[in-house]
Amino acid sequence: MDTAALVAAVRDGELRLHELEDRADADAAAEARRRLLAEETGADLETVGAYAFDAADAESNIENAVGAAQVPMGVVGPVAIDGGAVDGERYLPLATTEGALVASVNRGCAAIGAAGGATARVLQSAMTRAPVFRVADVGEAGAVAAWVRDSFETLAAAAEATTSHGELREVTPYVVGDSVFLRFAYDTKDAMGMNMATIATEAAAEVVERETPAELVALSGNLCSDKKPAAVNSVEGRGRTVAADVEIPGDIVEDYFGTTPAAIVEANTRKNLVGSAKAGSLGFNAHAANTVAAAFLATGQDMAQVVEGANAITTAEVRDGGPASGASGASPDAETSGGALYASVTLASLEVGTVGGGTALPTQAEALEVVGVGGGGDPAGSNADALAEVIAAAALGGELSLLGALAADNLAGAHEELGR
Amino acid sequence: MDTAALVAAVRDGELRLHELEDRADADAAAEARRRLLAEETGADLETVGAYAFDAADAESNIENAVGAAQVPMGVVGPVAIDGGAVDGERYLPLATTEGALVASVNRGCAAIGAAGGATARVLQSAMTRAPVFRVADVGEAGAVAAWVRDSFETLAAAAEATTSHGELREVTPYVVGDSVFLRFAYDTKDAMGMNMATIATEAAAEVVERETPAELVALSGNLCSDKKPAAVNSVEGRGRTVAADVEIPGDIVEDYFGTTPAAIVEANTRKNLVGSAKAGSLGFNAHAANTVAAAFLATGQDMAQVVEGANAITTAEVRDGGPASGASGASPDAETSGGALYASVTLASLEVGTVGGGTALPTQAEALEVVGVGGGGDPAGSNADALAEVIAAAALGGELSLLGALAADNLAGAHEELGR
Amino acid sequence: MDTAALVAAVRDGELRLHELEDRADADAAAEARRRLLAEETGADLETVGAYAFDAADAESNIENAVGAAQVPMGVVGPVAIDGGAVDGERYLPLATTEGALVASVNRGCAAIGAAGGATARVLQSAMTRAPVFRVADVGEAGAVAAWVRDSFETLAAAAEATTSHGELREVTPYVVGDSVFLRFAYDTKDAMGMNMATIATEAAAEVVERETPAELVALSGNLCSDKKPAAVNSVEGRGRTVAADVEIPGDIVEDYFGTTPAAIVEANTRKNLVGSAKAGSLGFNAHAANTVAAAFLATGQDMAQVVEGANAITTAEVRDGGPASGASGASPDAETSGGALYASVTLASLEVGTVGGGTALPTQAEALEVVGVGGGGDPAGSNADALAEVIAAAALGGELSLLGALAADNLAGAHEELGR
Amino acid sequence: MDTAALVAAVRDGELRLHELEDRADADAAAEARRRLLAEETGADLETVGAYAFDAADAESNIENAVGAAQVPMGVVGPVAIDGGAVDGERYLPLATTEGALVASVNRGCAAIGAAGGATARVLQSAMTRAPVFRVADVGEAGAVAAWVRDSFETLAAAAEATTSHGELREVTPYVVGDSVFLRFAYDTKDAMGMNMATIATEAAAEVVERETPAELVALSGNLCSDKKPAAVNSVEGRGRTVAADVEIPGDIVEDYFGTTPAAIVEANTRKNLVGSAKAGSLGFNAHAANTVAAAFLATGQDMAQVVEGANAITTAEVRDGGPASGASGASPDAETSGGALYASVTLASLEVGTVGGGTALPTQAEALEVVGVGGGGDPAGSNADALAEVIAAAALGGELSLLGALAADNLAGAHEELGR
Repeated sequence: MDTAALVAAVRDGELRLHELEDRADADAAAEARRRLLAEETGADLETVGAYAFDAADAESNIENAVGAAQVPMGVVGPVAIDGGAVDGERYLPLATTEGALVASVNRGCAAIGAAGGATARVLQSAMTRAPVFRVADVGEAGAVAAWVRDSFETLAAAAEATTSHGELREVTPYVVGDSVFLRFAYDTKDAMGMNMATIATEAAAEVVERETPAELVALSGNLCSDKKPAAVNSVEGRGRTVAADVEIPGDIVEDYFGTTPAAIVEANTRKNLVGSAKAGSLGFNAHAANTVAAAFLATGQDMAQVVEGANAITTAEVRDGGPASGASGASPDAETSGGALYASVTLASLEVGTVGGGTALPTQAEALEVVGVGGGGDPAGSNADALAEVIAAAALGGELSLLGALAADNLAGAHEELGR
Repeated sequence: MDTAALVAAVRDGELRLHELEDRADADAAAEARRRLLAEETGADLETVGAYAFDAADAESNIENAVGAAQVPMGVVGPVAIDGGAVDGERYLPLATTEGALVASVNRGCAAIGAAGGATARVLQSAMTRAPVFRVADVGEAGAVAAWVRDSFETLAAAAEATTSHGELREVTPYVVGDSVFLRFAYDTKDAMGMNMATIATEAAAEVVERETPAELVALSGNLCSDKKPAAVNSVEGRGRTVAADVEIPGDIVEDYFGTTPAAIVEANTRKNLVGSAKAGSLGFNAHAANTVAAAFLATGQDMAQVVEGANAITTAEVRDGGPASGASGASPDAETSGGALYASVTLASLEVGTVGGGTALPTQAEALEVVGVGGGGDPAGSNADALAEVIAAAALGGELSLLGALAADNLAGAHEELGR
Repeated sequence: MDTAALVAAVRDGELRLHELEDRADADAAAEARRRLLAEETGADLETVGAYAFDAADAESNIENAVGAAQVPMGVVGPVAIDGGAVDGERYLPLATTEGALVASVNRGCAAIGAAGGATARVLQSAMTRAPVFRVADVGEAGAVAAWVRDSFETLAAAAEATTSHGELREVTPYVVGDSVFLRFAYDTKDAMGMNMATIATEAAAEVVERETPAELVALSGNLCSDKKPAAVNSVEGRGRTVAADVEIPGDIVEDYFGTTPAAIVEANTRKNLVGSAKAGSLGFNAHAANTVAAAFLATGQDMAQVVEGANAITTAEVRDGGPASGASGASPDAETSGGALYASVTLASLEVGTVGGGTALPTQAEALEVVGVGGGGDPAGSNADALAEVIAAAALGGELSLLGALAADNLAGAHEELGR
Repeated sequence: MDTAALVAAVRDGELRLHELEDRADADAAAEARRRLLAEETGADLETVGAYAFDAADAESNIENAVGAAQVPMGVVGPVAIDGGAVDGERYLPLATTEGALVASVNRGCAAIGAAGGATARVLQSAMTRAPVFRVADVGEAGAVAAWVRDSFETLAAAAEATTSHGELREVTPYVVGDSVFLRFAYDTKDAMGMNMATIATEAAAEVVERETPAELVALSGNLCSDKKPAAVNSVEGRGRTVAADVEIPGDIVEDYFGTTPAAIVEANTRKNLVGSAKAGSLGFNAHAANTVAAAFLATGQDMAQVVEGANAITTAEVRDGGPASGASGASPDAETSGGALYASVTLASLEVGTVGGGTALPTQAEALEVVGVGGGGDPAGSNADALAEVIAAAALGGELSLLGALAADNLAGAHEELGR
């Protein structure tokens, strides 16, 4: 059928919008949908339709396809990273529509580079899924929780039978009245792992239902917690818990940001710590979500998981650069500028993968290649770890740059006043 | 200069990566960067480079451009909405890499449609910016806060002098020791408004510095709170506070989801309310962030603001459909299926615009046209309101579909058991 | 009836335990209950029964009375306070069972005194009550919220008709689906005001029900939020929002705490700011709840409201004491000790009264007299304000003392290491 | 020295207020302080001074003693409990100044009794202490965390060497930049255990400092989290995590509360779940803190820990009482009243002890005897477990009674309307 015929078939009710692929290939179905939408809404979908890949390549990623959203992609770096999974310089593509974001992150990365690079570490890796079960009463809840604590091997066997890569690390029971939540935590290697964890947990949940009186109510009970801003993730982590830090001599701070370590520390304390405290926030940072979102978009991550990516804490302190403080690499000049700046970003729940999800889509796969982490790593999990460390280092760059700008604006104001 | 010459200039240190636009047009600069990255990282950026718009069109959105990320776009709807700014059927494009998401949201929207459509309302609209000031002590803090409460007109005049569209609605002072935070809230009409609010607040902050002893430390003090998961947004709102709901007769619930209103209510209570409570969450929903992220990506919104979009509460209850409960429109059949399902989604802080930011980019502008909300509305603000209501209705569809699936899986299990 | 007869009557089922006052005076009824409990549980209630007031004096405070819990009471101070409602030196009685607490708070108060006293301010005063109403859908919810915003005078008239003291200050509507919460905020003068606010809100809620389609579901809908650790209180305040601070020269820090301003600042940052951030906490302090609980117990406040009293943020910074920093009063010696210590405590939701509740009970009334705030103030509200400022200053003392001890322990350790 | 001489010595600066015990016995020192305060503040401390125990008995609980606060004590119960540590009927003394509280809790307990009693379980028991250490960078942080995970036996040996009762159960490392927090969790048997945990952790922290480059900054880093409203406690528990529930036939609900199970469920959902969600709360209950505070005061618990006691979730649902729902014990009458009411309260972090702290004070010890849990249990820990279960059952009674009152008020209103 040609496009007109397909459109007519939908209009006539012969075919539903999502059934177009039954009659045509993916590109033709998308074209038909664009035509239909154009006619019904007056919108012209020409650019949406001008995507540079075969629609069939995205069939596992989208339904009711009409084309592609095209988001400008820039690049930051290279930034030198002394990490657990990455060692050396890396570029990071960022896709965003927010002007100045790439420039800002890049400026921060440049300052990090001038100071000798960032240190980064994946501190924990665990994808979680937490089904909720109904029990008769709190007595039964206690018994089920006890059974679960005693039956890790049984549950692991069931869960791991569903996957060739995933390993069950821990199952933690939480009880609220007659609801029992079991938080299953998996090592999912280079995959972000949500699907893997869900399938494995479904199998384990069947065992729980078979062996105990608990009845499954929902395979996800929000203790996971996926795509919600939840303290359980901030505290216990989800996906990668990853941190990056740097110590920047005062003269480099002055060169790159036009301000002092002390001014940046004050901005960080009043804004990121005290301000976030007063706001009842789970995010104690300036704009970590910006870097996370742009990196996620470029590299094919799940954009709704930016929510958890924002569970980040940024710290800053003035260090004297001397050996007593355990700091290293501060230049003597740091002293004359009032010490060196130590800054860190810790992302509690950064959910990333280099296989699965959107990572195989053409532009996304290319972006992962730029980072040098396309596909599965060797050992398994090392590519996703490396990606997490690069994102953390870039987020640190973004924090430094924005804090520097905020602090410099005010110094500037102060200077103007003094100049009067 | 041709590409090779540009690449050589960067390699030789004659030009920095972000200075390429000084020597070449936007497309050529991006090509040079791709070449350079390809050589340095081994990545092939062919598809990234095959974007369907002029690079110059995105110059205000990106730096260090290398091309575009292309994300599959599908469409859901049409869904009938009885809203404050929209009335009638609308389609909504969603861009995502998560397979089944579009299908799931669409199924929910279809059920909503079968039930006669959703009701939706923008309940509040306010973009906020909250600078933090330093004062000498809590005595001075109290005095500054009092001055601010008494000086709204003065602050509004300063703020509004910077913008032709924005209106200052409220300034709320918050004090923590010697830090004073002032949360400025603006009506920014059809713009998401973060930039407008920042510029206006900068002007107002200068007045505060001039008229009081307070000294500005940072133009954003995180009481805003932008791109962080903060209770201040969940409680007080930011951007649009928007809600959508629907009452679905039991037979339609059965038809579309293969389960009952009661089963969906139980899943919602144990997962979205009790589970999120136990998780220390600000998100009491199943996956609102999924719909928000996909709609934001398609329509050119700021992807980092998905964080606040996840501050959503989903409620569900069984209604008998009779007049006593205040419900209307439930079919008599509802009774036989154990009543009708009432469900709602309330998004506390959905930050959307139809002008500015990424909304003018080619694919994004086309997507906005599909919704019927491209550019400024008449009256001003009505297009962004309409977009918020359509997203809320779609998010409701997404919640219904996932809750329905969770509930049905378990019912299925129960049926199998009974079938033994 | 004598005690034995009363006990027999209860045993025989002729009288229920709470009906004893129908047959005997309050002291005799309490004696009968003690006898009964002694016989049934083997407990001897001799000391519980040896309370130093007439049982009748407590009849409005307790039911099923058996006597009194006696909790050791100490005193801290005098501490000099430059406040909005109090100016000069004040003592504060503290009742607690935690050894060393009074000594610790007193040490902090002594250091504050040596530095010239604390500054304190009540920044806001508002007792809240937030009923929840049911509406048909979000359209109706929006309409009710709009009606409430337009009807403040009507609601205030209804609310204030119930009270001779309270004034309605604000009504803020919050909508979640088909639930509408209205947060009523009152100035309740010297009363903590929960009862006054509840009664006034009940009257206003009747108006809402009469004038709109909203139906009251519960007179408290937890947006108040009473006796729950809620961000709405941390952000918006409840009862008194009160802060106290002090700048202490380095030599006085050394004298009183055996450590330095910098060490205390580091402990505060890592523990009270970063640690609480990671913990997902609403309390960014060391142990403010200790001082609040002990002062509440001594002065007859509602002990369950210690929950909100813990919504406190403690800040600390090193100041050079020079005029440039806006600080005043630091001795020149501060410089030689590495600057002065500025520290503050801000209690977002301290609910206190000097009339009503437990304030008229004999020991509690005496304790209020020690503070100099017994009964209603002149002007109305000034006694409760003063009490809040004294508690804030004492809480500051408690914070300083514990932070000092934590920091000194570690310095001690460091010194030992260096001494080896 | 007689009282006048003691007072004169303090006035003359010869003696400081807290040194009075150096010259006189505890009662005489307290008398001298009362005299001094009376003269300085005009307060009469007669009743404060009329405490019914020897001041010396409280010397480990108070400093600068002036006497005792006397708080009215009532009693609720007996309530039948099917618990893990308690089985049968128990009374619970409550000390409070809030009129109607005891009556309300007692009404709820009576309804529980009429329904056959509550089920209760201690689900977890762990007192925590979390020191914070400074490290050089995130690389070192990762290494220290890894060392800790591998060195449990070493740390346990050091910690347990300080205590004859406590057992180290778990050490969980949390990293934020260059801060490492180690959350030590202990089984402290019948003691609340904060002191035991602190001393044991101090010993373990020395090992950490000796074996790793980490330097202790503060022995408590707020990840504990003591006396702060923190999600880490809500999620992971602290002290006893304890739950109680009951299923009450509809006719008993009607008899005791004058309302229906469905009305109570609606009030619970809109207020305790949705309202608390909107409030950004960690407390999803009506007034659990009231029962906790009153029980803590009566039995000698740490009143500042009421803060964590408020981390409670109350659930309610209508059950049909049939076997299919897994419920048991509902009378046939439940059907006619629209089903039975299931309700539960889960207290995440109830910190209680029956030895140590204030439990040995005379009135408090007597109150513990009334509960039947004075002193150490057999097996160790069973008395504190039993106390936790009794408090949970009483808190459930309190929740039921308040929810019932809220629901009935509205039904009453509805009836009046219908009666017109």
